[in-house]
Amino acid sequence: MYRSHTCGELRLSDANKQVTLAGWVQTVRKFGAITFVDLRDRYGITQLLFGEELNTALESQPLGREFVLQATGLVTERTSKNANLPTGDIELTVQSFQILNRSVLPPFTIQDDTDGGDDLRMKYRFLDLRRNAVKKNLELRYAVNRAARNYLHENNFMDIETPFLIKSTPEGARDFVVPSRMNPGQFYALPQSPQTFKQLLMVSGYDRYYQIVKCFRDEDLRADRQPEFTQIDCEMAFVEQEDILNMFEGLVKRIFKDVRNIDYTEKVARMSWEEAMWTFGNDKPDIRFGMQLANLKFPAHSFASRAAQLKETAIGAGETGFAVFDNAETVLAIAVPGCSEYTRKQTDELTEWVKRPQIGMQGLVYIKCNADGTYKSSVDKFFNEEKLKQIADKTGAKPGDLVLILAGKEERTRKATSELRLEMGKRLGLRREDEFKLLWVLDFPLFEYAEEDNRWVARHHPFTSPKPDQIDVMIGNNPEIGNADKYLEHPYSNIKANAYDMVLNGNEIGGGSIRIYQRELQEKMFAALGMTPEEALHKFGFLLGAFEYGAPPHGGIAFGFDRLCAILGGSESIRDFIAFPKNNSGRDMMLDAPSTIDDKQFDELQIRLNLK
Amino acid sequence: MYRSHTCGELRLSDANKQVTLAGWVQTVRKFGAITFVDLRDRYGITQLLFGEELNTALESQPLGREFVLQATGLVTERTSKNANLPTGDIELTVQSFQILNRSVLPPFTIQDDTDGGDDLRMKYRFLDLRRNAVKKNLELRYAVNRAARNYLHENNFMDIETPFLIKSTPEGARDFVVPSRMNPGQFYALPQSPQTFKQLLMVSGYDRYYQIVKCFRDEDLRADRQPEFTQIDCEMAFVEQEDILNMFEGLVKRIFKDVRNIDYTEKVARMSWEEAMWTFGNDKPDIRFGMQLANLKFPAHSFASRAAQLKETAIGAGETGFAVFDNAETVLAIAVPGCSEYTRKQTDELTEWVKRPQIGMQGLVYIKCNADGTYKSSVDKFFNEEKLKQIADKTGAKPGDLVLILAGKEERTRKATSELRLEMGKRLGLRREDEFKLLWVLDFPLFEYAEEDNRWVARHHPFTSPKPDQIDVMIGNNPEIGNADKYLEHPYSNIKANAYDMVLNGNEIGGGSIRIYQRELQEKMFAALGMTPEEALHKFGFLLGAFEYGAPPHGGIAFGFDRLCAILGGSESIRDFIAFPKNNSGRDMMLDAPSTIDDKQFDELQIRLNLK
Repeated sequence: MYRSHTCGELRLSDANKQVTLAGWVQTVRKFGAITFVDLRDRYGITQLLFGEELNTALESQPLGREFVLQATGLVTERTSKNANLPTGDIELTVQSFQILNRSVLPPFTIQDDTDGGDDLRMKYRFLDLRRNAVKKNLELRYAVNRAARNYLHENNFMDIETPFLIKSTPEGARDFVVPSRMNPGQFYALPQSPQTFKQLLMVSGYDRYYQIVKCFRDEDLRADRQPEFTQIDCEMAFVEQEDILNMFEGLVKRIFKDVRNIDYTEKVARMSWEEAMWTFGNDKPDIRFGMQLANLKFPAHSFASRAAQLKETAIGAGETGFAVFDNAETVLAIAVPGCSEYTRKQTDELTEWVKRPQIGMQGLVYIKCNADGTYKSSVDKFFNEEKLKQIADKTGAKPGDLVLILAGKEERTRKATSELRLEMGKRLGLRREDEFKLLWVLDFPLFEYAEEDNRWVARHHPFTSPKPDQIDVMIGNNPEIGNADKYLEHPYSNIKANAYDMVLNGNEIGGGSIRIYQRELQEKMFAALGMTPEEALHKFGFLLGAFEYGAPPHGGIAFGFDRLCAILGGSESIRDFIAFPKNNSGRDMMLDAPSTIDDKQFDELQIRLNLK
Repeated sequence: MYRSHTCGELRLSDANKQVTLAGWVQTVRKFGAITFVDLRDRYGITQLLFGEELNTALESQPLGREFVLQATGLVTERTSKNANLPTGDIELTVQSFQILNRSVLPPFTIQDDTDGGDDLRMKYRFLDLRRNAVKKNLELRYAVNRAARNYLHENNFMDIETPFLIKSTPEGARDFVVPSRMNPGQFYALPQSPQTFKQLLMVSGYDRYYQIVKCFRDEDLRADRQPEFTQIDCEMAFVEQEDILNMFEGLVKRIFKDVRNIDYTEKVARMSWEEAMWTFGNDKPDIRFGMQLANLKFPAHSFASRAAQLKETAIGAGETGFAVFDNAETVLAIAVPGCSEYTRKQTDELTEWVKRPQIGMQGLVYIKCNADGTYKSSVDKFFNEEKLKQIADKTGAKPGDLVLILAGKEERTRKATSELRLEMGKRLGLRREDEFKLLWVLDFPLFEYAEEDNRWVARHHPFTSPKPDQIDVMIGNNPEIGNADKYLEHPYSNIKANAYDMVLNGNEIGGGSIRIYQRELQEKMFAALGMTPEEALHKFGFLLGAFEYGAPPHGGIAFGFDRLCAILGGSESIRDFIAFPKNNSGRDMMLDAPSTIDDKQFDELQIRLNLK
């Protein structure tokens, strides 16, 4: 061993011990004849003191930043202690040292606040990983990994490895494929998830399975997506939805406790998908703050269950005379607390914000609920004070609040209002990084309507079960959609899935479902998604077959491990929590991969390029 | 939850409780008006008793093998107990039941001793996995996983995930490659191991890394090789060989203890590569038994250090008059204990055994060391009793032993004698499945000579360091081999590697090395292996670059997880310890993968087939 202790270990109680440390030179400070060196390793920093007698040695082998140094000496009490360092009470009075390796000047500083840009840091990721900020992230990631494994182990789950070289069955996302040299003309696919394998394991009787496992999707990379990503993948047999919810909120609470020392003792909130869309405008609401949507006007078909409310809404009551509202499919509002005194400049800026292409609205209406109980709006021409009050009351606004109103097509307006709510929450500091609010979103629609093909697609995936009392609706009806305009009247549009998402601070961190385990129902599902029986057999024959040999009821969940770590670490970017991430073109900048391959490889694989 | 208890849980102390079980029907036995059902799940088997009152219900829904059944009833003391079952004191007197799913007749019996052949079991792997024999293997695998993680965690190792989509740098084995849609004409490779990444992590200061990780090699599959396999992959910084040996024999001992409750307290034996080759004829000796090789004759060049012994050997002393020995390069013998009374038939069978093509010898000479102190051999014509005794003494034979002697070309004869030793050990029951003997094999040659290209290849891999005192030999000499016949005289042929293999019962279960961490030495290594500086930079520029920024001394090891599990489970076949293995053509028989892909996929990837 090149060291007797680490650089984070020595304390005053070690004074006068002779020890050997090894690590990296963080800083070198010369004061006359003596030199101080901060020596860094994974565990911390210890100050080395090189006395006068080592001057000659230091001059002949000068130390530089990031040199690898081994030093032996005596632990000594410092004269001026550093309370910010755990080792700050002592220093090592060096007796002898050895440079284990030199370093050229790093292209950026190895500090929390580095001067390196993104590209440079990715190219020299091995140096970036030395920074404390990045190290903390990977340590947190390992802590989450450990906490998850311990909890699942204690609950009788077994880690069972599933294969990476599998069969290509492109459903939702694109597969990465791997040409097989031994089977020319044929390809493996890399798994988008171990979904079918974990279901087979349930059929095999391994009733509690888990894996922390890499998955692969060949999608165009939006910011903060990676072609390879990690899931905490779990499945249980002989369970109903309630069992899964309880087991896995336990998992996340355990992670909170072990990783961040947070006692999340309250029951995790639950909300139906419809409630989430109605109240927050999206299916992964950030419930750290209120500012809920007031549905002032909406098309009856989109929320049939709320149609009765239509009559009660301030705007829905009839023609307002304000064309923007009268012509809109939807009018939605939020009450932003304490912002009634926004200046013209501020409300103009908000108007510009909602008009950005990413939000895509035509404009913004506001009502200032003044502290004195009066109202002032951008549409005073059309609404008297009483009407303004009526609208403001619908949003729950109090004196001092600012009501913001958007109007337009249903889907876009709901999305825009949701975005505006999140933006205002952020600006007002209501989305605190150190506050964690979990939410189960339940009762998703089983199917979504795909306009381009006039058919159904699975909202979650084709293995998700409908609610037990809707199985007959699914089996008993022809999935074909006769009249595209009236797809909402098809019985399938009202089938709810036995599916659930776990949402943390407005991010979906996990999702799953109770699965189909009956061959007949699974075949109906494939048919509903437009697969011929032959296709279904070719792609999923093994699963349909397995369902004939005693498949138990089962269900599961998968957590996005990268995302979960990022949120727990208070970051928006998953890339900061991956040791060797890829950029938005799917490139590893450090390796310079992907790259060309040899003619010999093409030849052996019996493929060639066919570049456009 | 579909059950209140598992099928392995109920005891006499639960008598009179009302419980619900769910599981698979193992057997149905009708005795007049009552029916016994053995219900099976992951945890065990419980006997269900269906009384007369359930007859009608059972007749309208008859139970079959592998049906999924839920049954509620009272725990009752059995009249005739079954001492072989943990639940054998009780049975469940069924009050109500529900068939959760039916099963068609399985293609083979779900029993330890199944009637299913290999192909059938692989096609219906989801049924094969139900068999207790296979379940035990996967449970053992998980126990090894858990023990390894716990030990490494307690020793400050961090699990850090490395990427799967990397750069193709075909050195030893072939890479599996993955066409990149976003970077047309370019390919990722799947990692053969995370070797360079774990070294980069050492450069980054994560001084103790581990991962239980899938690796990929596109090799022609010999029996018991898989294109994807799992490693316990570890690396440490600031260590010397001794540190690694201590840390990782600790790991294996911990696995022994946690998984098999074996206290392996003795120090793991160590042996140099040369000693292993000399004494056992191979580099992974099974030291559960002796029967060591007696080197009666051998070419001086192959074991220079043993040349002095040449003169002492019985055969080496000069011409024997027996042409087979006199013309042979090598003569090796073993003393098989207690077999002096083998019949002619038995010795003939052994002769046939060594003449099989896999062994490839011309014949076998034997000396029977009779219990009365006399000797009898197949070469009495050429050797008198004194000479026979001399030879037998060299092997350490005692009265009652049978000496077996092979002669021929060095390499083949050594290998054959090693195989013969293992075979005799097996026949004599000296290789006990429940005895575990670990061995470190050390001091491997750094290079092997590749005759076809007249150049050096890395015996381990190109990142392995030479012994510290031989670094100068490596740097200071031109790797080119002038005279192919005299390659053994090249200074490189005597360089020993800082490498180590861990051997368990004659199987290599792990191997590793202290790595090169100096750019100059790494460049010299690449040059020695015939790489041009340009090639070295193209393939490994990121690593050479990293070595310039303060790389610490480091080393590591990787264990073959599948193999380790198989040996601990007392099996020769790794396939039995993998949930979803591939066959010898690299096919997944259950999925029917690899398979063809769509035209759309070819089109998007901009590749096409080029079948011969």
